Amino acid sequence: MESAEASFYSHPYVPTDLNLPGFVPVFLSQSTIVGVYGIASVIVVSLVWMFSGRFAKLSKNDRLLMCWWAFTGLTHMILEGYFVFSPEFYKAKAGTYLAEVWKEYSKGDSRYAARDAGVVAVEGLTAVLEGPASLLAVYAIARNKSYSYVLQLAISLGQLYGTAVYFITSVLEGDNFSTSSYYYYAYYITANASWVVIPSLVVFRCWTKICEAFEVYNYNKTKTH
Amino acid sequence: MESAEASFYSHPYVPTDLNLPGFVPVFLSQSTIVGVYGIASVIVVSLVWMFSGRFAKLSKNDRLLMCWWAFTGLTHMILEGYFVFSPEFYKAKAGTYLAEVWKEYSKGDSRYAARDAGVVAVEGLTAVLEGPASLLAVYAIARNKSYSYVLQLAISLGQLYGTAVYFITSVLEGDNFSTSSYYYYAYYITANASWVVIPSLVVFRCWTKICEAFEVYNYNKTKTH
Repeated sequence: MESAEASFYSHPYVPTDLNLPGFVPVFLSQSTIVGVYGIASVIVVSLVWMFSGRFAKLSKNDRLLMCWWAFTGLTHMILEGYFVFSPEFYKAKAGTYLAEVWKEYSKGDSRYAARDAGVVAVEGLTAVLEGPASLLAVYAIARNKSYSYVLQLAISLGQLYGTAVYFITSVLEGDNFSTSSYYYYAYYITANASWVVIPSLVVFRCWTKICEAFEVYNYNKTKTH
Repeated sequence: MESAEASFYSHPYVPTDLNLPGFVPVFLSQSTIVGVYGIASVIVVSLVWMFSGRFAKLSKNDRLLMCWWAFTGLTHMILEGYFVFSPEFYKAKAGTYLAEVWKEYSKGDSRYAARDAGVVAVEGLTAVLEGPASLLAVYAIARNKSYSYVLQLAISLGQLYGTAVYFITSVLEGDNFSTSSYYYYAYYITANASWVVIPSLVVFRCWTKICEAFEVYNYNKTKTH
């Protein structure tokens, strides 16, 4: 019954001839969708910030990075994980929060609704590998593990590579997947910008730190020989 | 004149309805195409092996890695670089070696001739970023630079990410881009296998080494405090 009904809705995405049989429109308002994600993120970041304060040895930067890894790890696993394993999210009943997120985001990039192979491949690697690895990074920083910097570097490079593939494929395919320029800038550009800027800073920091460690290590080795 | 003539040739690729106006068939034999690449690679590897023998401090593994980075760097820059910047390679006059390489390889994966966005994005990042970085790695190993391991790790992770996107997008799009199962296994699987196996070994080696350096570094820091 419902799917027959649902197939009568037309979708708001560009290109308009994109075929999405059984599409159910977004039900929640933009502010609700963004608000829930924003509030959940603020809660996660606050909890990690408070919790990390118990470790006397951690610098402010380390604590901020723990917040970032918790936030980005949960985003990868929950939001992006849902997308990867829900090829028919656009048919989901009105009000299913995670489906609403992707119905809304598809206004900025319809390749999500269209299930573009490049987007799904990148999101799959992000959700399945980078998500859990990000949570491991929270632990690695807290415990000052010897693999902490190399792990953070590896995940950040993965995020940068994924974002690069994401943007380059869009340009190669004509860069015309947004409902309007508002959604283009608000979702496609702005929402992804953090995953360009922050991983770049993390790569820079980890790279510098690893080189520093090798200077000490190589110096120690020449001394002992 | 030539392009009018050329457009009468039919291509050998799958899917057969792939539209390649102006296609010019492969002219060189498979053994010539593979042979030139093979001989050129053997020359590069031999030269780097001999040259690296002059550095008394380098281990056998370091010297082998220098050979790998020279080989993979030149492959990225020359072969893959040509592909990235030659969208119409399939129209190239018979006998243009680099075009022949991709006309031949497209029998294993027609997405090259079809200019699939995912393939072009990955090849672009590989040719433009990983190619020159690989040559830098040859130098970094020879001079025992403090960034040597982190550079090798970063390139290898990029190669693995690229190969993952390459295979995953193919599976998502139906994994049916080979002229025959011979080309599927000879080109698509075998030719790419080195870029899964070797980068994995390099990542493992660099990761272990970086952790080792941090153990020494962290130990030294606790001692001095």
